[in-house]
Amino acid sequence: MRVSLRTLRGIPDVQPGDDLAGLILEAAGDAPPNGTQVLAIAHTVVSKAEGAIAPLAGVRPGKRALALAAEQGKDPRVVQVVLDESTEVLRAQNGVIITRTRQGLVCANAGVDASNAPRADSVVVLPRDPDASARSLRARVGELTAARATVRARAPSPARVAHPPAILITDTFGRAWRHGQTDVAIGLAGLAPLDDWRGRRDASGTRLHATWLAIADAAAAAADLARAKDSREPVVVIDGLRRFITVEDGPGAAALIRPLDEDLFR
Amino acid sequence: MRVSLRTLRGIPDVQPGDDLAGLILEAAGDAPPNGTQVLAIAHTVVSKAEGAIAPLAGVRPGKRALALAAEQGKDPRVVQVVLDESTEVLRAQNGVIITRTRQGLVCANAGVDASNAPRADSVVVLPRDPDASARSLRARVGELTAARATVRARAPSPARVAHPPAILITDTFGRAWRHGQTDVAIGLAGLAPLDDWRGRRDASGTRLHATWLAIADAAAAAADLARAKDSREPVVVIDGLRRFITVEDGPGAAALIRPLDEDLFR
Repeated sequence: MRVSLRTLRGIPDVQPGDDLAGLILEAAGDAPPNGTQVLAIAHTVVSKAEGAIAPLAGVRPGKRALALAAEQGKDPRVVQVVLDESTEVLRAQNGVIITRTRQGLVCANAGVDASNAPRADSVVVLPRDPDASARSLRARVGELTAARATVRARAPSPARVAHPPAILITDTFGRAWRHGQTDVAIGLAGLAPLDDWRGRRDASGTRLHATWLAIADAAAAAADLARAKDSREPVVVIDGLRRFITVEDGPGAAALIRPLDEDLFR
Repeated sequence: MRVSLRTLRGIPDVQPGDDLAGLILEAAGDAPPNGTQVLAIAHTVVSKAEGAIAPLAGVRPGKRALALAAEQGKDPRVVQVVLDESTEVLRAQNGVIITRTRQGLVCANAGVDASNAPRADSVVVLPRDPDASARSLRARVGELTAARATVRARAPSPARVAHPPAILITDTFGRAWRHGQTDVAIGLAGLAPLDDWRGRRDASGTRLHATWLAIADAAAAAADLARAKDSREPVVVIDGLRRFITVEDGPGAAALIRPLDEDLFR
Protein backbone atom coordinates (compact mmCIF):
# COMPACT_ATOMS: atom_id res chain seq x y z
CA MET A 1 0.00 0.00 0.00
CA ARG A 2 1.05 3.59 -0.52
CA VAL A 3 0.26 6.70 1.49
CA SER A 4 1.39 10.15 0.39
CA LEU A 5 1.18 13.61 1.92
CA ARG A 6 1.74 17.01 0.41
CA THR A 7 1.21 20.51 1.71
CA LEU A 8 -1.28 22.77 0.01
CA ARG A 9 0.46 26.01 -0.91
CA GLY A 10 -1.06 29.43 -1.02
CA ILE A 11 -3.36 29.51 2.02
CA PRO A 12 -3.28 33.18 3.05
CA ASP A 13 -3.16 34.46 6.61
CA VAL A 14 -6.58 33.47 7.99
CA GLN A 15 -8.77 36.13 9.64
CA PRO A 16 -11.86 35.79 11.85
CA GLY A 17 -14.91 35.26 9.63
CA ASP A 18 -12.93 33.90 6.68
CA ASP A 19 -14.45 31.05 4.68
CA LEU A 20 -11.67 28.54 5.33
CA ALA A 21 -13.15 25.94 2.97
CA GLY A 22 -13.17 28.57 0.23
CA LEU A 23 -9.54 29.48 0.89
CA ILE A 24 -8.58 25.80 0.73
CA LEU A 25 -10.36 25.27 -2.58
CA GLU A 26 -8.80 28.42 -4.02
CA ALA A 27 -5.35 27.19 -2.98
CA ALA A 28 -6.09 23.77 -4.48
CA GLY A 29 -6.86 25.37 -7.85
CA ASP A 30 -7.40 22.87 -10.62
CA ALA A 31 -6.88 19.88 -8.32
CA PRO A 32 -9.75 20.22 -5.81
CA PRO A 33 -9.59 17.68 -2.99
CA ASN A 34 -11.89 14.70 -3.51
CA GLY A 35 -13.58 12.01 -1.44
CA THR A 36 -10.59 9.66 -1.62
CA GLN A 37 -8.47 12.17 0.30
CA VAL A 38 -8.05 13.50 3.81
CA LEU A 39 -7.42 17.19 4.44
CA ALA A 40 -5.31 17.58 7.58
CA ILE A 41 -5.72 21.12 8.88
CA ALA A 42 -3.73 22.72 11.71
CA HIS A 43 -6.30 23.88 14.25
CA THR A 44 -4.85 27.39 14.43
CA VAL A 45 -6.40 28.36 11.08
CA VAL A 46 -9.74 26.81 12.10
CA SER A 47 -9.59 28.71 15.40
CA LYS A 48 -8.73 31.96 13.64
CA ALA A 49 -11.51 31.59 11.06
CA GLU A 50 -13.96 30.89 13.90
CA GLY A 51 -12.67 33.81 15.93
CA ALA A 52 -11.42 31.52 18.72
CA ILE A 53 -8.92 34.17 19.77
CA ALA A 54 -8.63 35.67 23.24
CA PRO A 55 -7.39 39.27 23.42
CA LEU A 56 -5.27 39.50 26.56
CA ALA A 57 -6.05 43.17 27.25
CA GLY A 58 -9.45 42.41 28.82
CA VAL A 59 -8.30 39.40 30.87
CA ARG A 60 -8.17 39.92 34.66
CA PRO A 61 -6.23 37.02 36.15
CA GLY A 62 -7.73 35.55 39.32
CA LYS A 63 -5.87 34.34 42.43
CA ARG A 64 -5.16 30.89 41.08
CA ALA A 65 -3.89 32.19 37.75
CA LEU A 66 -1.62 34.67 39.53
CA ALA A 67 -0.19 31.94 41.77
CA LEU A 68 0.32 29.45 38.92
CA ALA A 69 1.84 32.13 36.70
CA ALA A 70 4.32 33.20 39.37
CA GLU A 71 5.22 29.57 40.08
CA GLN A 72 5.70 28.61 36.42
CA GLY A 73 7.11 31.90 35.12
CA LYS A 74 4.20 32.68 32.81
CA ASP A 75 2.02 35.66 31.86
CA PRO A 76 -0.86 35.59 34.42
CA ARG A 77 -3.35 36.65 31.73
CA VAL A 78 -2.37 33.69 29.53
CA VAL A 79 -2.66 31.39 32.55
CA GLN A 80 -6.15 32.75 33.22
CA VAL A 81 -7.15 31.90 29.63
CA VAL A 82 -5.65 28.41 30.12
CA LEU A 83 -7.74 27.93 33.27
CA ASP A 84 -10.87 29.23 31.50
CA GLU A 85 -10.31 26.64 28.77
CA SER A 86 -9.78 23.78 31.26
CA THR A 87 -11.84 21.60 33.57
CA GLU A 88 -8.86 20.29 35.58
CA VAL A 89 -5.16 21.01 36.12
CA LEU A 90 -3.27 17.69 36.08
CA ARG A 91 0.28 18.93 36.64
CA ALA A 92 2.14 22.22 36.75
CA GLN A 93 5.89 21.87 36.70
CA ASN A 94 8.98 22.91 34.69
CA GLY A 95 7.04 25.84 33.21
CA VAL A 96 4.35 23.56 31.78
CA ILE A 97 0.72 23.47 32.91
CA ILE A 98 -0.93 20.23 31.86
CA THR A 99 -4.70 20.40 31.93
CA ARG A 100 -7.80 18.61 30.74
CA THR A 101 -9.50 21.01 28.33
CA ARG A 102 -13.21 21.66 28.05
CA GLN A 103 -13.10 19.36 25.01
CA GLY A 104 -11.68 16.57 27.22
CA LEU A 105 -8.18 16.73 25.74
CA VAL A 106 -5.15 16.37 28.03
CA CYS A 107 -2.36 18.65 26.84
CA ALA A 108 0.00 21.47 27.80
CA ASN A 109 -1.53 24.90 28.39
CA ALA A 110 -5.01 23.76 27.27
CA GLY A 111 -3.90 24.14 23.65
CA VAL A 112 -3.64 27.92 24.14
CA ASP A 113 -1.15 29.16 21.57
CA ALA A 114 0.60 32.53 21.60
CA SER A 115 3.03 31.79 18.77
CA ASN A 116 0.38 31.73 16.05
CA ALA A 117 -1.74 34.59 17.33
CA PRO A 118 -2.73 37.27 14.83
CA ARG A 119 -1.75 40.07 17.27
CA ALA A 120 0.98 40.15 19.89
CA ASP A 121 -1.51 40.83 22.65
CA SER A 122 -3.80 37.86 21.95
CA VAL A 123 -3.71 34.06 22.06
CA VAL A 124 -5.35 31.44 19.88
CA VAL A 125 -7.54 28.94 21.74
CA LEU A 126 -8.92 25.59 20.57
CA PRO A 127 -12.12 25.57 18.50
CA ARG A 128 -15.07 25.25 20.91
CA ASP A 129 -16.20 21.92 19.34
CA PRO A 130 -13.52 20.71 16.94
CA ASP A 131 -15.61 17.78 15.65
CA ALA A 132 -18.42 20.20 14.76
CA SER A 133 -15.82 22.43 13.05
CA ALA A 134 -14.62 19.43 11.03
CA ARG A 135 -18.17 18.47 10.04
CA SER A 136 -19.03 21.96 8.94
CA LEU A 137 -15.77 22.33 6.98
CA ARG A 138 -16.46 19.03 5.26
CA ALA A 139 -19.98 20.07 4.31
CA ARG A 140 -18.75 23.43 3.05
CA VAL A 141 -15.97 21.86 0.96
CA GLY A 142 -18.59 19.55 -0.56
CA GLU A 143 -20.95 22.44 -1.27
CA LEU A 144 -18.27 24.58 -2.92
CA THR A 145 -16.92 21.68 -4.96
CA ALA A 146 -20.42 20.89 -6.26
CA ALA A 147 -21.02 24.56 -7.06
CA ARG A 148 -17.75 24.77 -8.96
CA ALA A 149 -18.59 21.65 -10.93
CA THR A 150 -21.93 23.22 -11.89
CA VAL A 151 -20.33 26.50 -12.94
CA ARG A 152 -17.99 24.55 -15.18
CA ALA A 153 -21.10 22.85 -16.58
CA ARG A 154 -19.69 19.40 -16.34
CA ALA A 155 -20.55 16.47 -14.12
CA PRO A 156 -18.07 15.44 -11.43
CA SER A 157 -15.64 12.91 -12.83
CA PRO A 158 -17.00 9.37 -12.34
CA ALA A 159 -13.59 8.37 -11.00
CA ARG A 160 -14.29 10.58 -7.98
CA VAL A 161 -16.41 9.44 -5.08
CA ALA A 162 -19.55 11.44 -4.36
CA HIS A 163 -18.79 12.58 -0.80
CA PRO A 164 -16.36 15.35 0.14
CA PRO A 165 -12.83 14.66 1.47
CA ALA A 166 -12.44 13.73 5.11
CA ILE A 167 -11.46 16.60 7.41
CA LEU A 168 -8.87 16.10 10.15
CA ILE A 169 -8.19 19.03 12.50
CA THR A 170 -4.85 18.67 14.29
CA ASP A 171 -2.99 20.06 17.27
CA THR A 172 0.55 19.49 18.50
CA PHE A 173 0.72 17.59 21.81
CA GLY A 174 3.55 16.58 24.10
CA ARG A 175 3.70 13.08 25.53
CA ALA A 176 4.00 11.97 29.15
CA TRP A 177 7.11 9.82 28.77
CA ARG A 178 8.68 11.01 25.57
CA HIS A 179 10.50 14.14 24.50
CA GLY A 180 9.16 16.29 21.73
CA GLN A 181 5.70 16.57 20.31
CA THR A 182 3.59 14.96 17.63
CA ASP A 183 0.35 16.11 16.04
CA VAL A 184 -2.89 14.42 17.07
CA ALA A 185 -6.47 14.57 15.85
CA ILE A 186 -8.71 16.96 17.79
CA GLY A 187 -11.51 17.26 15.21
CA LEU A 188 -12.63 14.77 12.61
CA ALA A 189 -15.31 14.22 9.97
CA GLY A 190 -15.42 11.35 7.50
CA LEU A 191 -12.37 9.44 8.76
CA ALA A 192 -12.47 6.44 11.08
CA PRO A 193 -10.70 7.60 14.26
CA LEU A 194 -9.72 4.07 15.22
CA ASP A 195 -9.22 0.76 13.42
CA ASP A 196 -10.17 -2.02 15.75
CA TRP A 197 -8.32 -5.30 15.26
CA ARG A 198 -8.96 -6.58 18.75
CA GLY A 199 -10.21 -10.12 18.49
CA ARG A 200 -9.28 -10.39 14.81
CA ARG A 201 -6.40 -12.60 13.70
CA ASP A 202 -3.07 -11.70 12.12
CA ALA A 203 -1.52 -13.32 9.03
CA SER A 204 -0.39 -16.34 11.07
CA GLY A 205 -3.86 -16.87 12.53
CA THR A 206 -2.95 -15.57 15.98
CA ARG A 207 -5.61 -13.47 17.65
CA LEU A 208 -4.53 -9.82 17.87
CA HIS A 209 -5.36 -8.92 21.43
CA ALA A 210 -4.41 -5.33 21.88
CA THR A 211 -4.31 -3.93 18.39
CA TRP A 212 -6.53 -0.92 18.18
CA LEU A 213 -4.94 1.56 15.86
CA ALA A 214 -5.44 5.29 16.29
CA ILE A 215 -5.65 5.98 12.54
CA ALA A 216 -6.57 9.65 12.89
CA ASP A 217 -3.71 10.39 15.29
CA ALA A 218 -1.25 8.56 13.01
CA ALA A 219 -2.54 10.60 10.06
CA ALA A 220 -2.17 13.83 12.06
CA ALA A 221 1.41 12.94 13.02
CA ALA A 222 2.18 11.98 9.41
CA ALA A 223 0.77 15.25 8.05
CA ASP A 224 3.11 17.30 10.19
CA LEU A 225 6.10 15.59 8.54
CA ALA A 226 5.13 17.23 5.25
CA ARG A 227 5.15 20.72 6.77
CA ALA A 228 8.03 23.10 7.17
CA LYS A 229 7.38 24.64 10.58
CA ASP A 230 8.53 28.11 9.56
CA SER A 231 6.25 28.43 6.55
CA ARG A 232 2.50 28.88 6.46
CA GLU A 233 1.34 25.43 5.43
CA PRO A 234 -1.64 24.66 7.62
CA VAL A 235 -3.26 22.24 5.17
CA VAL A 236 -1.87 18.85 4.11
CA VAL A 237 -3.56 16.64 1.52
CA ILE A 238 -3.30 12.93 2.31
CA ASP A 239 -3.76 10.22 -0.31
CA GLY A 240 -3.90 6.49 0.34
CA LEU A 241 -6.27 6.32 3.32
CA ARG A 242 -9.41 5.67 1.30
CA ARG A 243 -10.14 2.48 3.23
CA PHE A 244 -10.67 4.56 6.39
CA ILE A 245 -12.79 7.30 4.77
CA THR A 246 -16.54 7.12 5.32
CA VAL A 247 -19.56 8.70 3.68
CA GLU A 248 -20.96 9.54 7.10
CA ASP A 249 -19.03 12.02 9.24
CA GLY A 250 -18.75 9.35 11.95
CA PRO A 251 -17.94 9.60 15.67
CA GLY A 252 -15.25 12.29 15.32
CA ALA A 253 -12.04 12.74 17.27
CA ALA A 254 -14.00 12.65 20.53
CA ALA A 255 -13.82 8.85 20.15
CA LEU A 256 -10.05 9.08 20.68
CA ILE A 257 -10.38 10.57 24.16
CA ARG A 258 -9.90 8.07 26.96
CA PRO A 259 -12.75 8.60 29.41
CA LEU A 260 -11.95 9.91 32.90
CA ASP A 261 -12.82 6.61 34.60
CA GLU A 262 -10.18 4.78 32.51
CA ASP A 263 -7.48 7.39 33.19
CA LEU A 264 -4.67 5.76 35.16
CA PHE A 265 -2.49 8.88 35.23
CA ARG A 266 -4.53 11.72 36.73
CA MET B 1 6.81 19.33 0.48
CA ARG B 2 5.85 15.74 -0.18
CA VAL B 3 6.28 12.64 1.97
CA SER B 4 5.34 9.17 0.74
CA LEU B 5 5.30 5.75 2.32
CA ARG B 6 5.00 2.31 0.78
CA THR B 7 5.29 -1.17 2.17
CA LEU B 8 8.03 -3.44 0.95
CA ARG B 9 6.47 -6.68 -0.22
CA GLY B 10 7.98 -10.12 -0.02
CA ILE B 11 9.72 -10.17 3.36
CA PRO B 12 9.47 -13.83 4.41
CA ASP B 13 8.76 -15.08 7.91
CA VAL B 14 11.89 -14.06 9.83
CA GLN B 15 13.76 -16.67 11.87
CA PRO B 16 16.44 -16.31 14.57
CA GLY B 17 19.81 -15.80 12.90
CA ASP B 18 18.36 -14.48 9.64
CA ASP B 19 20.21 -11.66 7.90
CA LEU B 20 17.35 -9.13 8.04
CA ALA B 21 19.22 -6.55 5.93
CA GLY B 22 19.71 -9.23 3.25
CA LEU B 23 16.01 -10.14 3.32
CA ILE B 24 15.09 -6.46 2.95
CA LEU B 25 17.41 -5.97 -0.02
CA GLU B 26 16.11 -9.13 -1.66
CA ALA B 27 12.54 -7.89 -1.24
CA ALA B 28 13.51 -4.48 -2.64
CA GLY B 29 14.85 -6.14 -5.80
CA ASP B 30 15.85 -3.66 -8.48
CA ALA B 31 14.95 -0.65 -6.32
CA PRO B 32 17.36 -0.94 -3.37
CA PRO B 33 16.74 1.62 -0.65
CA ASN B 34 19.08 4.60 -0.80
CA GLY B 35 20.41 7.30 1.49
CA THR B 36 17.50 9.65 0.78
CA GLN B 37 15.07 7.16 2.34
CA VAL B 38 14.07 5.88 5.75
CA LEU B 39 13.33 2.19 6.30
CA ALA B 40 10.73 1.83 9.04
CA ILE B 41 10.91 -1.70 10.44
CA ALA B 42 8.47 -3.25 12.91
CA HIS B 43 10.57 -4.39 15.84
CA THR B 44 9.10 -7.90 15.82
CA VAL B 45 11.20 -8.90 12.81
CA VAL B 46 14.31 -7.34 14.36
CA SER B 47 13.62 -9.21 17.60
CA LYS B 48 13.06 -12.48 15.76
CA ALA B 49 16.23 -12.13 13.67
CA GLU B 50 18.17 -11.39 16.88
CA GLY B 51 16.54 -14.30 18.71
CA ALA B 52 14.84 -11.97 21.22
CA ILE B 53 12.20 -14.60 21.84
CA ALA B 54 11.32 -16.06 25.23
CA PRO B 55 10.05 -19.66 25.24
CA LEU B 56 7.44 -19.86 27.99
CA ALA B 57 8.08 -23.51 28.84
CA GLY B 58 11.16 -22.73 30.94
CA VAL B 59 9.69 -19.71 32.74
CA ARG B 60 8.94 -20.18 36.46
CA PRO B 61 6.78 -17.25 37.57
CA GLY B 62 7.70 -15.74 40.92
CA LYS B 63 5.37 -14.49 43.64
CA ARG B 64 4.90 -11.05 42.16
CA ALA B 65 4.21 -12.40 38.68
CA LEU B 66 1.66 -14.87 40.09
CA ALA B 67 -0.13 -12.09 42.00
CA LEU B 68 -0.13 -9.65 39.09
CA ALA B 69 -1.25 -12.36 36.66
CA ALA B 70 -4.16 -13.38 38.89
CA GLU B 71 -5.16 -9.75 39.39
CA GLN B 72 -4.99 -8.83 35.70
CA GLY B 73 -6.18 -12.13 34.20
CA LYS B 74 -2.92 -12.95 32.44
CA ASP B 75 -0.62 -15.93 31.92
CA PRO B 76 1.79 -15.85 34.92
CA ARG B 77 4.68 -16.94 32.72
CA VAL B 78 4.10 -14.00 30.35
CA VAL B 79 3.88 -11.66 33.35
CA GLN B 80 7.20 -13.03 34.61
CA VAL B 81 8.79 -12.22 31.24
CA VAL B 82 7.24 -8.72 31.42
CA LEU B 83 8.77 -8.20 34.88
CA ASP B 84 12.14 -9.53 33.69
CA GLU B 85 12.06 -6.97 30.86
CA SER B 86 11.12 -4.09 33.20
CA THR B 87 12.77 -1.89 35.80
CA GLU B 88 9.51 -0.56 37.28
CA VAL B 89 5.77 -1.26 37.17
CA LEU B 90 3.92 2.07 36.77
CA ARG B 91 0.33 0.83 36.73
CA ALA B 92 -1.54 -2.47 36.56
CA GLN B 93 -5.21 -2.12 35.88
CA ASN B 94 -7.92 -3.15 33.39
CA GLY B 95 -5.78 -6.11 32.27
CA VAL B 96 -2.88 -3.85 31.31
CA ILE B 97 0.51 -3.77 33.03
CA ILE B 98 2.32 -0.53 32.25
CA THR B 99 6.02 -0.69 32.96
CA ARG B 100 9.28 1.06 32.28
CA THR B 101 11.36 -1.34 30.23
CA ARG B 102 15.06 -2.01 30.59
CA GLN B 103 15.47 0.26 27.55
CA GLY B 104 13.70 3.07 29.46
CA LEU B 105 10.49 2.90 27.40
CA VAL B 106 7.13 3.28 29.15
CA CYS B 107 4.58 0.99 27.54
CA ALA B 108 2.09 -1.80 28.11
CA ASN B 109 3.48 -5.24 28.98
CA ALA B 110 7.09 -4.10 28.45
CA GLY B 111 6.61 -4.54 24.71
CA VAL B 112 6.27 -8.32 25.19
CA ASP B 113 4.25 -9.58 22.24
CA ALA B 114 2.51 -12.93 22.02
CA SER B 115 0.61 -12.24 18.79
CA ASN B 116 3.68 -12.20 16.58
CA ALA B 117 5.56 -15.05 18.24
CA PRO B 118 6.95 -17.76 15.98
CA ARG B 119 5.56 -20.53 18.23
CA ALA B 120 2.42 -20.58 20.35
CA ASP B 121 4.42 -21.24 23.51
CA SER B 122 6.77 -18.27 23.17
CA VAL B 123 6.68 -14.48 23.22
CA VAL B 124 8.68 -11.87 21.32
CA VAL B 125 10.51 -9.36 23.51
CA LEU B 126 12.09 -6.02 22.55
CA PRO B 127 15.59 -6.03 21.06
CA ARG B 128 18.08 -5.66 23.93
CA ASP B 129 19.47 -2.38 22.54
CA PRO B 130 17.23 -1.18 19.69
CA ASP B 131 19.52 1.73 18.74
CA ALA B 132 22.43 -0.69 18.38
CA SER B 133 20.16 -2.94 16.28
CA ALA B 134 19.33 0.03 14.04
CA ARG B 135 22.98 0.99 13.65
CA SER B 136 24.01 -2.52 12.78
CA LEU B 137 21.15 -2.91 10.28
CA ARG B 138 22.12 0.37 8.66
CA ALA B 139 25.74 -0.68 8.34
CA ARG B 140 24.74 -4.05 6.93
CA VAL B 141 22.35 -2.51 4.37
CA GLY B 142 25.19 -0.20 3.29
CA GLU B 143 27.63 -3.10 3.04
CA LEU B 144 25.27 -5.27 0.97
CA THR B 145 24.28 -2.40 -1.29
CA ALA B 146 27.95 -1.60 -1.99
CA ALA B 147 28.68 -5.27 -2.65
CA ARG B 148 25.78 -5.50 -5.07
CA ALA B 149 26.93 -2.39 -6.89
CA THR B 150 30.41 -3.94 -7.29
CA VAL B 151 29.02 -7.24 -8.58
CA ARG B 152 27.08 -5.30 -11.18
CA ALA B 153 30.37 -3.57 -12.07
CA ARG B 154 28.92 -0.12 -12.07
CA ALA B 155 29.37 2.80 -9.74
CA PRO B 156 26.49 3.83 -7.53
CA SER B 157 24.31 6.35 -9.33
CA PRO B 158 25.59 9.89 -8.71
CA ALA B 159 22.01 10.92 -7.93
CA ARG B 160 22.22 8.71 -4.85
CA VAL B 161 23.84 9.84 -1.63
CA ALA B 162 26.79 7.85 -0.39
CA HIS B 163 25.44 6.75 3.01
CA PRO B 164 22.87 3.98 3.56
CA PRO B 165 19.17 4.69 4.26
CA ALA B 166 18.16 5.66 7.77
CA ILE B 167 16.82 2.81 9.91
CA LEU B 168 13.79 3.33 12.17
CA ILE B 169 12.72 0.44 14.40
CA THR B 170 9.14 0.82 15.59
CA ASP B 171 6.80 -0.54 18.22
CA THR B 172 3.11 0.04 18.83
CA PHE B 173 2.40 1.98 22.04
CA GLY B 174 -0.78 3.03 23.80
CA ARG B 175 -1.17 6.55 25.15
CA ALA B 176 -2.06 7.68 28.66
CA TRP B 177 -5.07 9.83 27.74
CA ARG B 178 -6.08 8.59 24.33
CA HIS B 179 -7.69 5.46 23.01
CA GLY B 180 -5.93 3.28 20.52
CA GLN B 181 -2.26 2.97 19.71
CA THR B 182 0.27 4.56 17.40
CA ASP B 183 3.73 3.40 16.40
CA VAL B 184 6.73 5.10 17.94
CA ALA B 185 10.49 4.94 17.35
CA ILE B 186 12.36 2.56 19.66
CA GLY B 187 15.55 2.24 17.61
CA LEU B 188 17.10 4.71 15.21
CA ALA B 189 20.18 5.23 13.05
CA GLY B 190 20.72 8.09 10.61
CA LEU B 191 17.50 9.98 11.31
CA ALA B 192 17.21 13.03 13.58
CA PRO B 193 14.93 11.88 16.42
CA LEU B 194 13.79 15.43 17.16
CA ASP B 195 13.62 18.72 15.26
CA ASP B 196 14.17 21.54 17.69
CA TRP B 197 12.45 24.82 16.85
CA ARG B 198 12.49 26.14 20.40
CA GLY B 199 13.78 29.70 20.34
CA ARG B 200 13.47 29.96 16.56
CA ARG B 201 10.82 32.16 14.97
CA ASP B 202 7.80 31.26 12.87
CA ALA B 203 6.77 32.87 9.56
CA SER B 204 5.31 35.89 11.36
CA GLY B 205 8.48 36.45 13.39
CA THR B 206 7.01 35.15 16.66
CA ARG B 207 9.35 33.07 18.75
CA LEU B 208 8.27 29.40 18.80
CA HIS B 209 8.47 28.52 22.46
CA ALA B 210 7.49 24.92 22.74
CA THR B 211 7.97 23.48 19.29
CA TRP B 212 10.17 20.45 19.49
CA LEU B 213 8.98 17.95 16.95
CA ALA B 214 9.41 14.22 17.50
CA ILE B 215 10.24 13.49 13.86
CA ALA B 216 11.09 9.82 14.39
CA ASP B 217 7.86 9.12 16.28
CA ALA B 218 5.82 10.90 13.60
CA ALA B 219 7.59 8.83 10.93
CA ALA B 220 6.88 5.64 12.88
CA ALA B 221 3.18 6.52 13.19
CA ALA B 222 3.04 7.44 9.51
CA ALA B 223 4.65 4.17 8.45
CA ASP B 224 1.99 2.13 10.19
CA LEU B 225 -0.68 3.82 8.03
CA ALA B 226 0.83 2.16 4.96
CA ARG B 227 0.55 -1.31 6.49
CA ALA B 228 -2.36 -3.69 6.40
CA LYS B 229 -2.30 -5.17 9.89
CA ASP B 230 -3.27 -8.66 8.75
CA SER B 231 -0.49 -9.02 6.20
CA ARG B 232 3.21 -9.48 6.74
CA GLU B 233 4.53 -6.05 5.89
CA PRO B 234 7.10 -5.25 8.53
CA VAL B 235 9.11 -2.85 6.37
CA VAL B 236 7.92 0.51 5.05
CA VAL B 237 10.04 2.70 2.75
CA ILE B 238 9.64 6.42 3.45
CA ASP B 239 10.53 9.11 0.92
CA GLY B 240 10.57 12.84 1.55
CA LEU B 241 12.41 13.03 4.89
CA ARG B 242 15.84 13.67 3.42
CA ARG B 243 16.25 16.89 5.41
CA PHE B 244 16.22 14.84 8.63
CA ILE B 245 18.59 12.09 7.42
CA THR B 246 22.18 12.26 8.60
CA VAL B 247 25.44 10.67 7.50
CA GLU B 248 26.25 9.88 11.14
CA ASP B 249 23.97 7.43 12.94
CA GLY B 250 23.24 10.12 15.53
CA PRO B 251 21.82 9.90 19.06
CA GLY B 252 19.23 7.23 18.29
CA ALA B 253 15.72 6.78 19.67
CA ALA B 254 17.11 6.92 23.22
CA ALA B 255 17.01 10.72 22.78
CA LEU B 256 13.20 10.48 22.67
CA ILE B 257 12.95 9.04 26.16
CA ARG B 258 12.01 11.57 28.82
CA PRO B 259 14.41 11.07 31.72
CA LEU B 260 13.04 9.82 35.03
CA ASP B 261 13.60 13.14 36.81
CA GLU B 262 11.36 14.92 34.28
CA ASP B 263 8.58 12.31 34.52
CA LEU B 264 5.47 13.99 35.97
CA PHE B 265 3.31 10.85 35.70
CA ARG B 266 5.06 8.04 37.57
